[in-house]
Amino acid sequence: QGTRDHPPAHVALRDRLLAAVVACFKRHGAATIDTPVLELRETLTGKYGEAAKLIYELQDQGGELLALRYDLTVPFARYLAMNKITNIKRYHIAKVYRRDNPAMTRGRYREFYQCDFDIAGQFDPMIPDAECLKVVHEILSDLQLGDFLIKVNDRRILNGVFAVCNIPDSKFITMCSTVDKLDKMPWEKVRSEMVGEKGLSPEAADRIGEYVQLHGGLDLIERLLQDPKLSQNKLAKEGLEDMKLLFEYLTLFGIAGKMSFDLSLARGLDYYTGVIFEAVLLQQENDHVEESVSVGSVAGGGRYDGLVGMFDPKGRKVPCVGVSIGIERIFSILEQRVKVSGERVRTTETQVLVATPQKHLLAARLKLISELWDAGIKAEMLYKKDPKLLKQLQYCEDTGIPLAAIVGEQELTDGVVKLRDVATRKEVRI
Amino acid sequence: QGTRDHPPAHVALRDRLLAAVVACFKRHGAATIDTPVLELRETLTGKYGEAAKLIYELQDQGGELLALRYDLTVPFARYLAMNKITNIKRYHIAKVYRRDNPAMTRGRYREFYQCDFDIAGQFDPMIPDAECLKVVHEILSDLQLGDFLIKVNDRRILNGVFAVCNIPDSKFITMCSTVDKLDKMPWEKVRSEMVGEKGLSPEAADRIGEYVQLHGGLDLIERLLQDPKLSQNKLAKEGLEDMKLLFEYLTLFGIAGKMSFDLSLARGLDYYTGVIFEAVLLQQENDHVEESVSVGSVAGGGRYDGLVGMFDPKGRKVPCVGVSIGIERIFSILEQRVKVSGERVRTTETQVLVATPQKHLLAARLKLISELWDAGIKAEMLYKKDPKLLKQLQYCEDTGIPLAAIVGEQELTDGVVKLRDVATRKEVRI
Repeated sequence: QGTRDHPPAHVALRDRLLAAVVACFKRHGAATIDTPVLELRETLTGKYGEAAKLIYELQDQGGELLALRYDLTVPFARYLAMNKITNIKRYHIAKVYRRDNPAMTRGRYREFYQCDFDIAGQFDPMIPDAECLKVVHEILSDLQLGDFLIKVNDRRILNGVFAVCNIPDSKFITMCSTVDKLDKMPWEKVRSEMVGEKGLSPEAADRIGEYVQLHGGLDLIERLLQDPKLSQNKLAKEGLEDMKLLFEYLTLFGIAGKMSFDLSLARGLDYYTGVIFEAVLLQQENDHVEESVSVGSVAGGGRYDGLVGMFDPKGRKVPCVGVSIGIERIFSILEQRVKVSGERVRTTETQVLVATPQKHLLAARLKLISELWDAGIKAEMLYKKDPKLLKQLQYCEDTGIPLAAIVGEQELTDGVVKLRDVATRKEVRI
Repeated sequence: QGTRDHPPAHVALRDRLLAAVVACFKRHGAATIDTPVLELRETLTGKYGEAAKLIYELQDQGGELLALRYDLTVPFARYLAMNKITNIKRYHIAKVYRRDNPAMTRGRYREFYQCDFDIAGQFDPMIPDAECLKVVHEILSDLQLGDFLIKVNDRRILNGVFAVCNIPDSKFITMCSTVDKLDKMPWEKVRSEMVGEKGLSPEAADRIGEYVQLHGGLDLIERLLQDPKLSQNKLAKEGLEDMKLLFEYLTLFGIAGKMSFDLSLARGLDYYTGVIFEAVLLQQENDHVEESVSVGSVAGGGRYDGLVGMFDPKGRKVPCVGVSIGIERIFSILEQRVKVSGERVRTTETQVLVATPQKHLLAARLKLISELWDAGIKAEMLYKKDPKLLKQLQYCEDTGIPLAAIVGEQELTDGVVKLRDVATRKEVRI
């Protein structure tokens, strides 16, 4: 339940998508690592808050207590701490496991791919953070998924907002999850959740509302830096100054136009400590192709400076910032697009079928195909002693093989091969 | 225990190895599929004999009872039956899980990669079987692993041998595992295991010994086809006739020279029904590089015509033949070779480092690197506002980046970039 087999057409399309993503990661000088699917249970304990109940545990068959990884970030942090690595830029594309309620039509599975790019190390502020956003911008542009927007915020600004609105520290995390809903419901509903479920006073909720409904660019950052209350809060001020720097770098990268400093962006995970961001595709109203696919967040990430320290015996920190590309969701969109376009995705790369027009020529086919393979040419033949020529040509059409190398009695006598273009039916003797 | 993190240099080398293997699979027109790491426990039950105790089971957390896949062959057979696929050529490279005693120095892990190529479908005899052997031959030749030999046998011939030696059917499987040891111990020891542990009469053991010590080529096949006892056994006769056909095809492929028809080859798995084979590297006596790595089987496979039927409700069979490339073992050999050669495996593909020789030029670097990325060039820069030029060039040497694009105050004024070849220190202004 919640898992699936991927048939060849599926994998071929996914490989096409991943090739574009990996090309971007490599363009940015990232190396790649591989960690086990199995982790010690204790490694995952206390990293995912409420979601811990979704972790797959292995049966105790003697020896260590194990679980399946829930994401790639925690194993990455463990890897850095275990190997005392203080400086790395790496990507990792692999499957993760969550015992969630599967919703296959909406692309939610229990086994799915994550696709992460992270920069670890102590660096000057906002330079690696800006690069992560550049990576997201490049990938979404390359894949031509339509118009998109990247929302950016900072956990320090959000914490500052809560502080100046007199929300107690203990409510910050639960407030984050309520604020995060502003992208799906109107302020009035969010406000009533704050007051009703979370027990805030209407005045406190309104004070928060004045901030979290704001979004903009450099102008908004400047304005908030002048805000009499927020500018007095140390965390918020740090966050806003870094946000200003970030937008300067994004402008130099030429990508500030797609960025929105959005105070309602909160993101779920506890471990974020600084910049957070999320990329969303913008709905195209007249494009009913996309309608059937739920459009939403296609990438997200942020800075997590405390996670590696949790795995180091001396608590030594390694600052990290990273992004996760939502390739399962992007894949659904591409799959839908291919379906509508009627494109037939080839599942093999075969260039030529070795064929014979008469009987008793298996030996000739075996010799020719062997020569082609040894010359590095992608070649197939039917596994029949005496296949009909029509069947062989039909196979080419069915599987998209562009050429047939035909060797018959006449060709054998003349020492040639007849090369046929399957689409145009043109033949040349070579 | 028994798992490991793969650092960048490891993954880079493995990717190089896999690229060669995948190129061969694609050259032969194979598609690829992906199946879940999780399988229903009942899918794996009864497929691995004794080895079943090595299967990793997941904790019962409600819902289905699950296990981690033990190999890629059983999931492949399940996939064919579930989707009623009767005809496919596919490869699959993925991790499998075995709760075995790990022996990391000998390359035995609990999580490791398998790399399988299989041809499923009802075809004329021995054509796909010969192609599997051609695939092994191509891969071992391409990887330049030194001299190798591919041992070939047929389960039907082995069963025929046991039958004509009057071994009861019930002892066939246990006899297979004893015979299989002939590659590691002399006949006398194998014989005493047969007589001592397995309770065979000395005469029966000697009769078996006359056959299983034989190995050769077409000449041996012809001789056995004339053997008064064996030629009377239906299964053995079928096997020998197919073996003759196979050697004819291998001769047409030009690879019969590396093949040895070896009656001692038995292979462990129960599900083989016809041809079986195993590739071994031949020890190079004077090459002490290889000494530290245990050389042995680097590929193996065979025909399993009954496995898919076990998953079909009506027992419909899909004949299959396939090969598994022992990439973990091959990887150990390549890794050892790289270590001895002193080659430094690059873990990134970065072509150019964007550098500045003076302070206050971060903006210039960000603009230039952004242009390079957008033009598809693999570029890095240091994440410092004002790095020293020496540090930047040192980074190039440490990580193997061949070029530095230097932009200083003079270059900015002149509207040029200084491109420096890191190795030769030659510079050009462009």
